[in-house]
Amino acid sequence: MNFEKAKQELLEWLAIPSVSTLSERNADTRKAAEYLHQKLLSLGLNSSILETAGHPVVYAEHLKADPTAPTVLLYGHYDVQPTDPDNEWTTAPFAPDIRDNAIYARGSTDDKGQVWAHVAALEHHLQTNRQLPVNLKILIEGEEEIGSPNLKPFVLEQAAKLKCDVVVISDGSMFAPGVPTLTTGLRGLCYLEVHVQGAKQDLHSGGYGGAVANPIQALAQIIQSLRNGNGEILIPGIYDSVRPVPEAELEGWKRLPFDEAALMKSLEVSALPGEPGYSVLERLWARPTLEINGIWGGFQGEGQKTVLPAKAGAKISLRLVPDQAPDEIFELVKKHIQSLELLGVTVSVKKLHTGNPALVDSSSPAALAAIAALERAYPNTEPSFVRTGGTIPVVAVFREVLNAPVLLVDYGLPDDGAHGPNERFTLECFEKGIETSIYLYEELAKLKT
Amino acid sequence: MNFEKAKQELLEWLAIPSVSTLSERNADTRKAAEYLHQKLLSLGLNSSILETAGHPVVYAEHLKADPTAPTVLLYGHYDVQPTDPDNEWTTAPFAPDIRDNAIYARGSTDDKGQVWAHVAALEHHLQTNRQLPVNLKILIEGEEEIGSPNLKPFVLEQAAKLKCDVVVISDGSMFAPGVPTLTTGLRGLCYLEVHVQGAKQDLHSGGYGGAVANPIQALAQIIQSLRNGNGEILIPGIYDSVRPVPEAELEGWKRLPFDEAALMKSLEVSALPGEPGYSVLERLWARPTLEINGIWGGFQGEGQKTVLPAKAGAKISLRLVPDQAPDEIFELVKKHIQSLELLGVTVSVKKLHTGNPALVDSSSPAALAAIAALERAYPNTEPSFVRTGGTIPVVAVFREVLNAPVLLVDYGLPDDGAHGPNERFTLECFEKGIETSIYLYEELAKLKT
Repeated sequence: MNFEKAKQELLEWLAIPSVSTLSERNADTRKAAEYLHQKLLSLGLNSSILETAGHPVVYAEHLKADPTAPTVLLYGHYDVQPTDPDNEWTTAPFAPDIRDNAIYARGSTDDKGQVWAHVAALEHHLQTNRQLPVNLKILIEGEEEIGSPNLKPFVLEQAAKLKCDVVVISDGSMFAPGVPTLTTGLRGLCYLEVHVQGAKQDLHSGGYGGAVANPIQALAQIIQSLRNGNGEILIPGIYDSVRPVPEAELEGWKRLPFDEAALMKSLEVSALPGEPGYSVLERLWARPTLEINGIWGGFQGEGQKTVLPAKAGAKISLRLVPDQAPDEIFELVKKHIQSLELLGVTVSVKKLHTGNPALVDSSSPAALAAIAALERAYPNTEPSFVRTGGTIPVVAVFREVLNAPVLLVDYGLPDDGAHGPNERFTLECFEKGIETSIYLYEELAKLKT
Repeated sequence: MNFEKAKQELLEWLAIPSVSTLSERNADTRKAAEYLHQKLLSLGLNSSILETAGHPVVYAEHLKADPTAPTVLLYGHYDVQPTDPDNEWTTAPFAPDIRDNAIYARGSTDDKGQVWAHVAALEHHLQTNRQLPVNLKILIEGEEEIGSPNLKPFVLEQAAKLKCDVVVISDGSMFAPGVPTLTTGLRGLCYLEVHVQGAKQDLHSGGYGGAVANPIQALAQIIQSLRNGNGEILIPGIYDSVRPVPEAELEGWKRLPFDEAALMKSLEVSALPGEPGYSVLERLWARPTLEINGIWGGFQGEGQKTVLPAKAGAKISLRLVPDQAPDEIFELVKKHIQSLELLGVTVSVKKLHTGNPALVDSSSPAALAAIAALERAYPNTEPSFVRTGGTIPVVAVFREVLNAPVLLVDYGLPDDGAHGPNERFTLECFEKGIETSIYLYEELAKLKT
């Protein structure tokens, strides 16, 4: 394979600021789709840019393998997270920089770098054999970071075209450097916004403090009613549908090389607080959590302003586990917040989006093929089965609509900084990712249909 | 008096964005000082712009009255509050607009309009009599909205020059339209900032939620530990030094035309929550309060970002009453916050500034002169004695350093929107303010020294 060429192309792709949540980046987001589309065309795939109600989908096919070879659907996304806080990036998020044997750029690990590992693997097969070992369909979307609002309709509409024997996704991280990993579980998501309105306008805190409700105070009260200091969620009914983790899986997690002290050191924190009675990995992978993702209200500028603000708001999300149903969870949260007695303010709760949690069958022939590929890429290392705390809502969509097993073969690292400043993708992960992808298509080819 | 001329000049002065807390407005802030300085020179006062470590002071004298006439020190400020949220202003804050019989602009009531009422009164006396009835010193500062950090050093240094028999300040509001008011009490202030740091950088909320402390959550916990939903402050010792209000003063407050329903309607709130057992006026004037003036953390943009933020912060202030000492109160707050057990985060508490509470002697000859002036401006209406929930830290400075009584004769209205969007000063208040000022200097002249 030509690693240098793959790297140069990835750097070009990363330079396109395809931030899907910002409408002023719409043109750039389309440009990132176009870049991938042109590359796939150049490889000889039948590629097209398909419109949706939001950002377009890049869809490509290469169906020239033996008819008995399986059909693989590769899914990924070309959109990226916003970059704030911008002042914490060492180099600009869309000026990809190579240092310390890694590519630093927004989207490098999540998910452009991992998508490009597959693209380079396809290029390798096509240049070596003028052929792919499998029949391939590629679906790379532009709305993963905003919850894939248009992907389910797209998949439903194109279900016949997307028919496949297995779905492959690389959009997460290996358990640790050098630990080849198959991910067997994902958490779901319920993301909402809370707005609190007090008086009709900002007031002088001297003139009104003591008589008028403060919406920031009310918001703090709401937040404190949602979760305690231990991380336990206080919303009635929230744990009712949580499925316990099988003993064997828990035993496997205990064998993983997980180093709490190293994690604390890398994050520069003095504790990893969380739900009592559960290990850190259980809390991350198999327990629902609630986070405040953002908060605002009143004066945030330099110096002081003696204002009693009129409004405040927060973005709040829950990570969900099987068998929690996101829409039901949203109703529980909303009902709970609305039940609070908050004098002198009005509160509104708005659902931004939801994604289902998912478990992946690790004993299927497809999973065994992935394990074989990982064993070839990492000789003498037994692949690990893990879950991830994150969410890929489309996994549930593919399972439900296409009825195909989903393989999560992740090439990033846990400390790549996805969603934060200084996101990176190590050159080693990129190269091993290309290699694993090459083997993966070969191993999947053995699953005659 | 020439009201039209006074109005035109005030509009010009209001157009200068003298926001003292924003360093990018430093040049404009000086320009506002210069505008006043030129006006006082044109009236024949001996005016100068005196430098401080921060924004300059406009200081002027007119000491040509009978030597037995008292010396009056007029204090005010030419700086204004920031204007955010800018999108809530009907017309731009520094494009003064006259509508509904009021001048709308940042600083119109707080305090440029009230200062200009005095300037116009002086102009009237000088044009009518070529003389002022009193010996006058004028001190208009540019840092009131940031806590007057350089005024006390200035007054201490210039104490001999500032020597006077009485200090006059118009920087607040009448109790209600048509209710001539002498203000006899001010609350003090303790303004601080709290910063909470979690992990060293923003993290993916899916990848880390459940194992890493959330600084917004910790901040909500801090806020909830400071005050309960009733507005009662929970910091140990905070009420120990609160002086009870004399019965006679409480009785006077009960006679004031205070309409809770009208206040709720004007603010568009359904309740005026606060400390149980105290009337709204007591809570506003004679009880300490704690407000969150601003809060920030994580993602505040459009859409969603699944981030577990690294840091969060809040601006918090307490209004204080006699005999609470602001620096001691700050130590109580800091000690309380630092005593909280918050795993996995570090918290810092920073004092931004403090101001002493103050009571004004309402039976002094100077106060009686003010009452006489109010009675002339508002015939057949008995002036009311009130306190105010706000803070003018320099009142304590004048009392301590100059040992002079301080008269608070306020010309604004409670719903003028000081510190909020659409700040205004009614034309009636402006005109009555000029008239009252004309009488005030005449009445004060009778206090032979």
